Amino acid sequence: MKAAEPCPWRVGHLARGPRDAITDVPRVTVGHCTLAEHSVQTGVTVVRAHAGSHFLQKVPAAATVINGFGKSVGLLQLDELGVFETPLALTNTFSVPALAQAQISQAIAAHPEIGRLWPTVNPLVFECNDGYLNDIQALRVQPSHYLQACETAESVFAQGAVGAGRGMSCFGLKGGIGSASRVVSYATGSYTVGALVLSNFGKLKNFMLLGQPVGQRLAARQRNVEASPPDKGSIIMVLATDAPLDARQLRRLSVRAAAGLARTGSFYGHGSGDIALAFSTAYTIPAHTTEPMPAIALLHEQALDPLFEAAAESVEQAILSSLWHATSVTGRDGHVRQSLRELVGASRA
Amino acid sequence: MKAAEPCPWRVGHLARGPRDAITDVPRVTVGHCTLAEHSVQTGVTVVRAHAGSHFLQKVPAAATVINGFGKSVGLLQLDELGVFETPLALTNTFSVPALAQAQISQAIAAHPEIGRLWPTVNPLVFECNDGYLNDIQALRVQPSHYLQACETAESVFAQGAVGAGRGMSCFGLKGGIGSASRVVSYATGSYTVGALVLSNFGKLKNFMLLGQPVGQRLAARQRNVEASPPDKGSIIMVLATDAPLDARQLRRLSVRAAAGLARTGSFYGHGSGDIALAFSTAYTIPAHTTEPMPAIALLHEQALDPLFEAAAESVEQAILSSLWHATSVTGRDGHVRQSLRELVGASRA
Amino acid sequence: MKAAEPCPWRVGHLARGPRDAITDVPRVTVGHCTLAEHSVQTGVTVVRAHAGSHFLQKVPAAATVINGFGKSVGLLQLDELGVFETPLALTNTFSVPALAQAQISQAIAAHPEIGRLWPTVNPLVFECNDGYLNDIQALRVQPSHYLQACETAESVFAQGAVGAGRGMSCFGLKGGIGSASRVVSYATGSYTVGALVLSNFGKLKNFMLLGQPVGQRLAARQRNVEASPPDKGSIIMVLATDAPLDARQLRRLSVRAAAGLARTGSFYGHGSGDIALAFSTAYTIPAHTTEPMPAIALLHEQALDPLFEAAAESVEQAILSSLWHATSVTGRDGHVRQSLRELVGASRA
Amino acid sequence: MKAAEPCPWRVGHLARGPRDAITDVPRVTVGHCTLAEHSVQTGVTVVRAHAGSHFLQKVPAAATVINGFGKSVGLLQLDELGVFETPLALTNTFSVPALAQAQISQAIAAHPEIGRLWPTVNPLVFECNDGYLNDIQALRVQPSHYLQACETAESVFAQGAVGAGRGMSCFGLKGGIGSASRVVSYATGSYTVGALVLSNFGKLKNFMLLGQPVGQRLAARQRNVEASPPDKGSIIMVLATDAPLDARQLRRLSVRAAAGLARTGSFYGHGSGDIALAFSTAYTIPAHTTEPMPAIALLHEQALDPLFEAAAESVEQAILSSLWHATSVTGRDGHVRQSLRELVGASRA
Repeated sequence: MKAAEPCPWRVGHLARGPRDAITDVPRVTVGHCTLAEHSVQTGVTVVRAHAGSHFLQKVPAAATVINGFGKSVGLLQLDELGVFETPLALTNTFSVPALAQAQISQAIAAHPEIGRLWPTVNPLVFECNDGYLNDIQALRVQPSHYLQACETAESVFAQGAVGAGRGMSCFGLKGGIGSASRVVSYATGSYTVGALVLSNFGKLKNFMLLGQPVGQRLAARQRNVEASPPDKGSIIMVLATDAPLDARQLRRLSVRAAAGLARTGSFYGHGSGDIALAFSTAYTIPAHTTEPMPAIALLHEQALDPLFEAAAESVEQAILSSLWHATSVTGRDGHVRQSLRELVGASRA
Repeated sequence: MKAAEPCPWRVGHLARGPRDAITDVPRVTVGHCTLAEHSVQTGVTVVRAHAGSHFLQKVPAAATVINGFGKSVGLLQLDELGVFETPLALTNTFSVPALAQAQISQAIAAHPEIGRLWPTVNPLVFECNDGYLNDIQALRVQPSHYLQACETAESVFAQGAVGAGRGMSCFGLKGGIGSASRVVSYATGSYTVGALVLSNFGKLKNFMLLGQPVGQRLAARQRNVEASPPDKGSIIMVLATDAPLDARQLRRLSVRAAAGLARTGSFYGHGSGDIALAFSTAYTIPAHTTEPMPAIALLHEQALDPLFEAAAESVEQAILSSLWHATSVTGRDGHVRQSLRELVGASRA
Repeated sequence: MKAAEPCPWRVGHLARGPRDAITDVPRVTVGHCTLAEHSVQTGVTVVRAHAGSHFLQKVPAAATVINGFGKSVGLLQLDELGVFETPLALTNTFSVPALAQAQISQAIAAHPEIGRLWPTVNPLVFECNDGYLNDIQALRVQPSHYLQACETAESVFAQGAVGAGRGMSCFGLKGGIGSASRVVSYATGSYTVGALVLSNFGKLKNFMLLGQPVGQRLAARQRNVEASPPDKGSIIMVLATDAPLDARQLRRLSVRAAAGLARTGSFYGHGSGDIALAFSTAYTIPAHTTEPMPAIALLHEQALDPLFEAAAESVEQAILSSLWHATSVTGRDGHVRQSLRELVGASRA
Repeated sequence: MKAAEPCPWRVGHLARGPRDAITDVPRVTVGHCTLAEHSVQTGVTVVRAHAGSHFLQKVPAAATVINGFGKSVGLLQLDELGVFETPLALTNTFSVPALAQAQISQAIAAHPEIGRLWPTVNPLVFECNDGYLNDIQALRVQPSHYLQACETAESVFAQGAVGAGRGMSCFGLKGGIGSASRVVSYATGSYTVGALVLSNFGKLKNFMLLGQPVGQRLAARQRNVEASPPDKGSIIMVLATDAPLDARQLRRLSVRAAAGLARTGSFYGHGSGDIALAFSTAYTIPAHTTEPMPAIALLHEQALDPLFEAAAESVEQAILSSLWHATSVTGRDGHVRQSLRELVGASRA
């Protein structure tokens, strides 16, 4: 897998991690499975919190629903228990059931006790609607694509029109997968906050690049403006950190994704599923009472502000990164989403 | 479909509807598809709010998650928008994806614009884990079973070990589908509150029948107590009313399901997905702005108490009804769930 | 302070603590200040989580609003931060501001840095409306009464028509302060769950005593039924435990108060402020980053069920205890609330 | 009262109302009471939704807690019932109890039945901590100041360092009261969204003016940077609209305040009480069942996006307006907050 070269637009003033990607958080890996032929322009992206069984070693996490016009599954139990227990999966809206089934089957294959001697497993699948470029009604994503994405997960990964991002649109341009990271220093050491987004929201006229309302100028140059459907997009924002936070604190961290999102021009449209999830890799929760619970000294609440700022910065950066890396794609019925770089000719600059 | 004869145990003092069932609320219908052979003891139950397209005529609704150890899907968008847009589906935990896919396909078949010109559809599937009696890992529920349940939906329906209730256990006995209704009179007319539950929770020793701790006595008589798995059950509680309530008021109504549940002996166990949903049939919300919004005079907040009491009573009654109607079932690996009537010899009385 | 003799009605089957009171949880103390002359029948009750400064050593806690027709203050910040930082105060509805001011003044007096070098302090005051017996509009509760209640806090305390419970009504009878505890054993030791309630809800006809619908029979015997105002009551339910739980787990614990409440006959009426708060005494959170955060091994999620059952049992028991201890009170405009023991003649038995 | 001249910085592209203030929403009025002498630099601001009794004609409303480090009171009941029943009051943190008491007294004076024949009244007071400029421990705000603010409420009102905004700081500069409005046109007519903020958050280095990171440049010019306390600020954001929305929709509207706030540079700091409330003036809810409920055709959900955009724009604009109107203030211990205009010399331009 070729590493994405970093997005040249620099958000904020905090230090970046070495990859400027969510995988700067140790143990986090990302994998894609991309489907791209003719009217099928879609795929699967997987984020793993660690290399082991997520069911046996559950991951502390929390989510914020900024706007709930969305069909993601798994947040009900995550809210109650403060952990997730499968790798995170992202895909298109109508493929959520296929991936949920894949996660169930994967967990049963690894642990046949699930649903019998042990509790059932909680699938966790996020989605955006890529129906403008992708024939979403064709239901082409299969459980095997999820497994492929899991198998290819590593710390170096591609961004843009890949994986679940293959068919996504953002600000009327080609969107998709973007990532970024920020490093925060404390007297006792430093922590990383990494973001990965699946961007699929907004109208071009609202796009703000580093505070500049460039969307209005670009809208004049864009082809096929009339063909743009109304804003029915969404964004999934995943935050990872190695700071020792519990689910309550992670929920607070996830709220800050809304700030990064707003700075790109979003006002959290009615038809958008704007969802942020944050997890910590500082510890895991064992599935069974036979293993001892970890004794964790959490970060003090008054020390959270740098992480909150890092969350807002890294989400804004990740959205810009998704736009910068995405290449133009032609899909269903000849629909085209132009890349931002093509539109501004930035690739030549 | 043969009507269930009413459960003889009488909860509370409010008047019952003619069927003592959720279908006493006009336009509500219920259908089942039951799978019962050898180690497959499971099924699907569907609740329709009206006979038309739920996507075009959305149903005002709200839900309460009393305990969120559950895998139901669709509540995210329901919380945001205050409506549902498919018939309600109930099944076993691992069959949620199959039914969600069935709901998507059903909606697309009826409205090919979905996911293209129109927004996507929000599947709404509730579940309990019937893994003690049913080979849940076999994933035998198919989309066609959902369609069969939809087609057979009518106002007269069976209760007990049928549909989604086929393999469910409640207080270590045979649980499943139960229903009840209460009628509340106002100066301006009367309204009905109906409940339908999928009961799958509790240990026998905690069972309370009309306030009596009969569970402790029955536990002594029960066969196979050792075989009982730890309490990993759940309960889905659906409330319908023809009172004109909005989503905020319906959320308040759904909270009262927790009172009825507690009176049967539940303390909302850790491993239980205890979820209540309430909907109103007094009006619908059109999918498209081309249709006018209904001008509804809601019920005054100070008039809600009789409905709240009816919700608590009808949920308790519906749980008892699920136990009373359920017949003994033998399933996976020879596991047996005895019916309450068999255990107490009530069937001979 | 004379210890309350235990309520003879025995709820459930779990073991009781030595006092059957919230103060069976080590370090928890309770104090009252009672105002009882003529039309002033009200007061203040304080629950302390430990003997030190709650501002410096914050207490992990969470709350559940079962029904939010209430004017309690302080839950906003408690929800965000998962701690409280003053002793808990209970009083009548219109005296909430006086006690909030008292808590602010108390905190400033102890820590003049508050609101200047340090953050402000979050008052936490719970209330019910005792307006039937008490001239609530007279606003007779003063900050000094709060300080008196704090000063008298100890592990032995009175129940019934005392402190904040002086003027409260429950099921049309005399309500007020009640308490109970349950002890749960694990392989590694035992934990106590204690409850303290301020009961002020319900109509007599709905009262259920250990599952028996005695309210309907008693209603026939009760004097002045016509004088009963509509159900505008409330209940505050405080749960304490020495089990090591975090705020998320404590929120789950607090939800179980709803089960205990329902079993006494409540259906969570529209006009009721039904609020539960749970806190842990297993550790505290230091106010300042100069002190290290505690490294706590929390109780495993799968071990919570006995605590959940204890919460439901102890709340039901505490409500019965409030009714059993309360003596008849005559207050404003000659209004009378008869005690349950007087009504049933139990005091002579 | 002299009208505030409009802030010259123009946010977004939507049309402004004639006053560019919350009082462009018909019937909404704003009043201030300012306390400004020596170390007392504080006050009260009141927002009225209509000229009548808010208790008799309750106002549909909902709130969003973006970050809950705050001591505002009244949201508990507002969340449950979807209305408020007093004028909105804003003040400093430690004066919340005084104003809550004032609202209770005001309601009782108008309606002596409150707390006796009628339910109690729910005080609704919002706060920020003005302790840098104001001697907040002096508790100088009295109930009479609330009444004065109510009496002076009109559609023309001052902005900046007035009323509750007198002692507030924003981005290390003088903050306070700001307001703005946007008008949205539909085929069937137009609706106004108005915002009023009490700004008291942020560090100068994070300030973004219309997308420009001017804060970092200004920080170099600012006097007394060392004297700045850590970010313990807050912001209250009140949104009014004449669009017919219910509480669920108003909650959605209030969420969009977070987008406007983020665009000024906030990342919703840990120590901040960032709270948004939205209300509709299109109808009221009668207190008593003797009056008929209004039959309202709500705005269709798919028509909300322009209002959402207006909410984000008007909140950003109102924050800038608070900075533009605020004059430099010297307060407690000689602490100074410089105005933005003084800092940039804009007043001479």
